[in-house]
Amino acid sequence: MTRRRQIYEGKAKILYEGPEPGTIIQYFKDDATAFNNQKKGTINGKGVLNNRISEHIYTRLGHIGIPHHFIRRLNMREQLVRQVEIVPIEVIIRNVAAGTLAKRLGLEEGTPLPRALVEYCYKDDALGDPLVGEDHIECFGWASNEEMRDITEMAFRINDFMCGLFSAINIRLVDFKLEFGRVWENEYPRLLLADEISPDGCRLWDMESDEKLDKDRFRRDLGGEVEAYQEVARRFGLLPEGAE
Amino acid sequence: MTRRRQIYEGKAKILYEGPEPGTIIQYFKDDATAFNNQKKGTINGKGVLNNRISEHIYTRLGHIGIPHHFIRRLNMREQLVRQVEIVPIEVIIRNVAAGTLAKRLGLEEGTPLPRALVEYCYKDDALGDPLVGEDHIECFGWASNEEMRDITEMAFRINDFMCGLFSAINIRLVDFKLEFGRVWENEYPRLLLADEISPDGCRLWDMESDEKLDKDRFRRDLGGEVEAYQEVARRFGLLPEGAE
Ligand SMILES: Nc1ncnc2c1ncn2[C@@H]1O[C@H](COP(=O)(O)OP(=O)(O)O)[C@@H](O)[C@H]1O
Ligand SMILES: Nc1ncnc2c1ncn2[C@@H]1O[C@H](COP(=O)(O)OP(=O)(O)O)[C@@H](O)[C@H]1O
Ligand SMILES: [Mg+2]
Ligand SMILES: [Mg+2]
Repeated sequence: MTRRRQIYEGKAKILYEGPEPGTIIQYFKDDATAFNNQKKGTINGKGVLNNRISEHIYTRLGHIGIPHHFIRRLNMREQLVRQVEIVPIEVIIRNVAAGTLAKRLGLEEGTPLPRALVEYCYKDDALGDPLVGEDHIECFGWASNEEMRDITEMAFRINDFMCGLFSAINIRLVDFKLEFGRVWENEYPRLLLADEISPDGCRLWDMESDEKLDKDRFRRDLGGEVEAYQEVARRFGLLPEGAE
Repeated sequence: MTRRRQIYEGKAKILYEGPEPGTIIQYFKDDATAFNNQKKGTINGKGVLNNRISEHIYTRLGHIGIPHHFIRRLNMREQLVRQVEIVPIEVIIRNVAAGTLAKRLGLEEGTPLPRALVEYCYKDDALGDPLVGEDHIECFGWASNEEMRDITEMAFRINDFMCGLFSAINIRLVDFKLEFGRVWENEYPRLLLADEISPDGCRLWDMESDEKLDKDRFRRDLGGEVEAYQEVARRFGLLPEGAE
């Protein structure tokens, strides 16, 4: 592999310059962080699994017309994606109360919400990705109201599709985080789903046992992180035969 | 004064049954609280001043057609208002970064915002009035999207008017909190501005000296709370001659 210029190293991935202009390579690390970087660790093989799971989900989302950055997987830990200008907003969709929502609003974890709920956080590690309202986003120029309307519409469609996708493998999609970005085409911005979708940014509960198959195993010291991520990949049929 | 049934005792006011159905009496106490009730104290004469200042502002807001609950002041500490079904959302309008906004988004206190900004908090003392997004409000049935649109439109009009009102007395309106409620007329809900507008729920900075003329004097142990509230009333011409 030729040496490529590193663009950015994040908490879970490294970005490298891609082979063509407008492309980048996402390298998936095994590093795990939680609580805004205060807790750090490693989940062996996580990068390989997330690369594969994210490829699977983006490909399938493409089938229902969700525009996304994914081009193709290059190897075990890398995927080629279109370079976007990231909208600095984490879009969270929740179907069931858990995590910060449960805590902030005094809901018992596991309470189904009246309907799917969208939340926005300003993506800024130093500030701890604070929850923001729609008006903050427009006021500080992070995205226009029109962009947020389109992003939110996409996010709810993605939720419906992913609820189905995970339902088919007996997993309840409790909540998940999305990132979007802009590509410029003839001076016009177009929005693409970017980053990754994996157990790192989703809450995934087994439908029978309520067992957590996601990063909460790491956050809450439940153990069995590797097995949980593997189990999600296995149910999707993404593990080679005999690897189970 | 005849004994009336007490409906509710809050942090700053007591509500009594009013003389006619659909009315209540707001009694303004001198009690001051901050940081979600963790800090408690008394500001001598605050109730009298807030009753008077709130009357003044609601009366003037009525002149530009803002529908509100205020009927008339009854005495030094009491005012008669229309009873409403309170929408459990605190509507905050900000013109300048201060308080929790400055902290959450890492802005220096005093930074003018690009434009007036609206924030919503879920009114629940036990939860610490957490910031919420528009979707939480609809999802949990606290208010409909149509109500929030009307409320927000009113809140921005109120901001423009109040910026003018305070500008005339050389005070910068940094931010303030509003509460709204519903009255039912022929089965239809109508929204009214409720609660109070006073230095308890506004940040008011002297335009020349940047001196704080509001509850931050109490929150931050700056001293001179009584004088600050008096000064606001005085500039509005609400103190009897010789009381200065
Ligand atoms: N297609 C893309 N183009 C440019 N940046 C992207 C793209 N997809 C994701 N990113 C950004 O790359 C980084 C991915 O690495 P990650 O380890 O998740 O970083 P972080 O710690 O900032 O979340 C993120 O900051 C994400 O916003
Ligand atoms: N017109 C009204 N009808 C009914 N309730 C009202 C009206 N105006 C204000 N309220 C409510 O009355 C209470 C006023 O007392 P306050 O001391 O401010 O209470 P709190 O500690 O709950 O903020 C508030 O809970 C407020 O929401
Ligand atoms: Mg990330
Ligand atoms: Mg109050």
